[in-house]
Amino acid sequence: MQHTIQFKPDNITVPVEKGENLLTAAATAGVHINAYCGGDGVCGKCRVKIIKGEVRTEKSTLKQDDWDQGLRLACQTTVESDLVISIPEKTGDGSKSLKRKPKTTRNISAKSLDTLVGKWDTDPPVSKIYLQLDPPTIDDNISDMARVMRGFKNILPSNLEPTYDHPLLIKELAETLREADWKITLLLLHGKQDYEPDRIIDIEPGDTTDKLYGLAIDIGTTTCSGVLIDLNSGNILSEASGYNGQIRYGEDVISRIIYAARPGGLLALRNKIVSTINSIIEDICRDIIISPADIGYIMAAGNTIMSHLLLGLSPKYIRESPYVPSVSQFPLTKAAELGIHAHPSVRLFLYPCIASYVGGDIVSGVHACQIAKSEKISLFIDIGTNGEIVVGNNEWMVCAACSAGPAFEGGGIKHGMRASNGAIENFHIHPETFEPMIITIGRIKPSGICGSGLISVVSELLEAKVIDQQGKFKNHLDNVRIREGRDGWEYVLAWGKDSLIGEDIVITEVDLDNLMRAKGAMYAGYQTLLESVGLSFQDLDRVIIAGNFGAYIDLERAINIGLLPDVDRDIFYYIGNASMLGCQISLSDVKRFRERLHVRKLITNIELSENPEFMNYYMAALFLPHTDMSLFPSVQQKLI
Amino acid sequence: MQHTIQFKPDNITVPVEKGENLLTAAATAGVHINAYCGGDGVCGKCRVKIIKGEVRTEKSTLKQDDWDQGLRLACQTTVESDLVISIPEKTGDGSKSLKRKPKTTRNISAKSLDTLVGKWDTDPPVSKIYLQLDPPTIDDNISDMARVMRGFKNILPSNLEPTYDHPLLIKELAETLREADWKITLLLLHGKQDYEPDRIIDIEPGDTTDKLYGLAIDIGTTTCSGVLIDLNSGNILSEASGYNGQIRYGEDVISRIIYAARPGGLLALRNKIVSTINSIIEDICRDIIISPADIGYIMAAGNTIMSHLLLGLSPKYIRESPYVPSVSQFPLTKAAELGIHAHPSVRLFLYPCIASYVGGDIVSGVHACQIAKSEKISLFIDIGTNGEIVVGNNEWMVCAACSAGPAFEGGGIKHGMRASNGAIENFHIHPETFEPMIITIGRIKPSGICGSGLISVVSELLEAKVIDQQGKFKNHLDNVRIREGRDGWEYVLAWGKDSLIGEDIVITEVDLDNLMRAKGAMYAGYQTLLESVGLSFQDLDRVIIAGNFGAYIDLERAINIGLLPDVDRDIFYYIGNASMLGCQISLSDVKRFRERLHVRKLITNIELSENPEFMNYYMAALFLPHTDMSLFPSVQQKLI
Repeated sequence: MQHTIQFKPDNITVPVEKGENLLTAAATAGVHINAYCGGDGVCGKCRVKIIKGEVRTEKSTLKQDDWDQGLRLACQTTVESDLVISIPEKTGDGSKSLKRKPKTTRNISAKSLDTLVGKWDTDPPVSKIYLQLDPPTIDDNISDMARVMRGFKNILPSNLEPTYDHPLLIKELAETLREADWKITLLLLHGKQDYEPDRIIDIEPGDTTDKLYGLAIDIGTTTCSGVLIDLNSGNILSEASGYNGQIRYGEDVISRIIYAARPGGLLALRNKIVSTINSIIEDICRDIIISPADIGYIMAAGNTIMSHLLLGLSPKYIRESPYVPSVSQFPLTKAAELGIHAHPSVRLFLYPCIASYVGGDIVSGVHACQIAKSEKISLFIDIGTNGEIVVGNNEWMVCAACSAGPAFEGGGIKHGMRASNGAIENFHIHPETFEPMIITIGRIKPSGICGSGLISVVSELLEAKVIDQQGKFKNHLDNVRIREGRDGWEYVLAWGKDSLIGEDIVITEVDLDNLMRAKGAMYAGYQTLLESVGLSFQDLDRVIIAGNFGAYIDLERAINIGLLPDVDRDIFYYIGNASMLGCQISLSDVKRFRERLHVRKLITNIELSENPEFMNYYMAALFLPHTDMSLFPSVQQKLI
Repeated sequence: MQHTIQFKPDNITVPVEKGENLLTAAATAGVHINAYCGGDGVCGKCRVKIIKGEVRTEKSTLKQDDWDQGLRLACQTTVESDLVISIPEKTGDGSKSLKRKPKTTRNISAKSLDTLVGKWDTDPPVSKIYLQLDPPTIDDNISDMARVMRGFKNILPSNLEPTYDHPLLIKELAETLREADWKITLLLLHGKQDYEPDRIIDIEPGDTTDKLYGLAIDIGTTTCSGVLIDLNSGNILSEASGYNGQIRYGEDVISRIIYAARPGGLLALRNKIVSTINSIIEDICRDIIISPADIGYIMAAGNTIMSHLLLGLSPKYIRESPYVPSVSQFPLTKAAELGIHAHPSVRLFLYPCIASYVGGDIVSGVHACQIAKSEKISLFIDIGTNGEIVVGNNEWMVCAACSAGPAFEGGGIKHGMRASNGAIENFHIHPETFEPMIITIGRIKPSGICGSGLISVVSELLEAKVIDQQGKFKNHLDNVRIREGRDGWEYVLAWGKDSLIGEDIVITEVDLDNLMRAKGAMYAGYQTLLESVGLSFQDLDRVIIAGNFGAYIDLERAINIGLLPDVDRDIFYYIGNASMLGCQISLSDVKRFRERLHVRKLITNIELSENPEFMNYYMAALFLPHTDMSLFPSVQQKLI
């Protein structure tokens, strides 16, 4: 149910959902409220006065005097009706705040799926048919398998006779048929092409046509997740995820490749990813009470290194110039042969990769959002330690990987951390007092800064002119939060007393340098790719931001720092875990499933690592947002 | 080099090869020479006088007197020039002998291959191509496998991109390519249909195109054999064979089925056949010094029970009415997955079966002699414990199995034995003295009678009227060799002193009964099958006798006893091990290879076991040659 909040004295009115947290609503609206403790309710800074309307709230650390005056802690308060509230701690006239418009990024995200991804059918690459066979007689004593085939042709007369290749299937066939009184269900895998026959994967006693499940797996370097789909209805029945068990051998793909070269390393990595997938299958099967053997098909996608490790292929040459993977189009594999707990004949389909650092997860994502079906030119971006970029349409696509470094995942940042509880994920700075408004994941005291928080912090510091466009602190500013620390100048996001770690949480010039390198690599990547096909940012019809990290990026701030191009906001789409989405779609719809190789073939890889063009663009991008401000007209406006 | 021998006093002249044994030549010519010891040179009975010409000979047990008179032992003498010889021990005027024409069965056998089997190409279902790939660079860093595919398309631009499915292949690919300096040879398995892509089976370093071998395997219940073919030239490089190791678990298929039902029995039988095949591979590879991994393709054929056991399928329901096998068209299998010592990706193709007792060996044989390509109506016969019969042409075929019992393999015959050294394989009787001329396998003292010997013995006894058409001895004959023994009346083939076993070797009326049942089942089978399609023996254009046993059957004598139909001798063909021949042809010629399923599909099985028609025919056939003598006009002539 929708309500509105009017914030005074800024006079900003925004729509909110019932139950929304007031501090979050203010942050989304771009209304500054001092807040030091991330939303934990302990710093007592985020007091607001409820002028009109109903809220739910907790007194928390609020003094009785304040409570009696109608003050409430924004972080402890949720919306129950239309509200008018004022922010008493606010100093100044609020005019600076008024410049800001309410953020709309979450709205863009909400509209994305329908227009981009389109509809898909529930017509999966596997199906079941129920057969009631005539028992053999002396006048009709063809082999058991021939009887099954005849039964199949009776029901599907126009189809080619199916094949089968599963030794266990024919070993158990005679007993299965007789125990089931000649009433059986075939699990069929459809041919890759129409002229290819179906393949019998399993023969089950009785009528089991109502049990047909497919599993989509996204194999991330950090996290793996699985989604189980009822392939009769298309409904998602269960989801599960977990850390990739390989993490103990290194956080990023490079350290995994190094580990794989050690004696036994490849096998250890393979076993870890397999057991991670098995845990996901176990969780899902326990959740909805089915057996792993009931899963009829598995669609998976991962980057090139994860795909190699799952198949037990050495990733050695991926790391050495000229960066060559062993295989990019993976053979259809029986999941059980990899050690995955699945029916012995069930296939695991792994999305093809493009290059060593542009993997099946990207192909799956590009496939999901149908870039290959539209004349519109799309820029597809997956931001991370290894950033992947694809540009193109239904006629051509180019892609590149750029090594952005770990800043977006908290690496190389003094108080950087993964996006987990206690990470500062949203930040506002008061334009005059430079006091912070910090919101953490889990609304607890802050313990560090995650990638999306970092983008917020840097964008806010830049807009408030606490830092200049070179990412240096304007050290003439006389403010207690801006100081010279051990690593040079820094801004204190949270004092030790307000932080979970008991020490001051700061952002330093070294951190700013690392962030600039990361965002500069991404932006130079866009430029190099576009230039390679003779296009500019103005030619783009869509900018699609994929990835779990991407889903949490604030669009305006990402543009402010030069991570995303300064183009019409209406062409941005947030698609979230596109890789998983591609797997789900392929799993559900055989027509979409068959398009996947076409998508892969459209995409040409461009190597940036030794590309002089890229290096020039990169150097020019080491600025906030960029040395060429004509590329960022809207940011230039703000920085005047 | 051809010579002639004129036998006196019979005045029969026959062509012979230089080096031919005189006793054998006489037997083939139908000239009787008393001979008791099977050709061992010890009985001294087969003395002949060399009237003209050169021979090689041994004195052996011949007395000096005889030697000086120019007498020689026929069994110890071979032809060196045109000869005129006389047989001094001969009594009577020889007129009875003159009735016989020289046997021509071996000549028919010699002509068979060309007209029946036709020519085949050396264009096997597997091939090799040598690729010199460009090493990867930073501007050309597609995956290793994509590079291989590109190299393939450079050489064969019109072909579909090949598939591959061998995990080891891609695991070793990166190292293979780099160690081989990007010069490699692909081993390809051609698609089952033209629109199917090739499949890469192996990637070998360097140029190995000159090494391309295929193995044909005939899996017999008793004996397995293998033939290695150079698939570049089509030449046979090596052959090997051995007893089927399952023999220890029972001589015939029924006892194997029973054994398979015991705990662990199926596995034991599977292991035995696999190790038998492995021994054959080992022998062949040692012979021509190649590695088992060099064999690129395996074509095998066996009866339905052997095929089931090789694949580890329970043959349980084959033995129980209504006699249903699990599978008749076997999936393409990786040989290594069965435990066969072969390259891990090499396929073993097993000829499809028709019914529980008409197996892949029969399909392979019918395929070999191209019945499915001719309008001519053929009767295809494989005589054995389980006799198999096929009738048909290019439009239709019917087949049946008939349980003849083990008589043809020596079973149920008092002195029956397998066709091994010491077995009486040829026999003549003197029409007046009833003295025998026996020739054994290995030309040693006799130790028993094998199947082909049994046919000779019965036919001779019948023609000499020692037995009547009911298979009973005419016991009024006053002859020392015809006597009443423990099992009733019998004829002494060899006295104890002349035999290897030290006791008299006889044939009894019980033996004759068993033989009549065996040959009666076969003949009733022909009749039932022909009747089922509304034909008679006169409609047959060809009678093809397959099988190792068939190759040793004397045509006239087999007709005499009613085992083969009394039709024009010129339509008979001896094809020998047709099953092996089919495998060899399929291995060598992909066009012939692809016909195999068509052949299988043309054939309809007719069950004789509970067929009242068959039972009537069977009862009528329990006579020598038959109760209906109009079916055997030429035999009727002889028996007047």
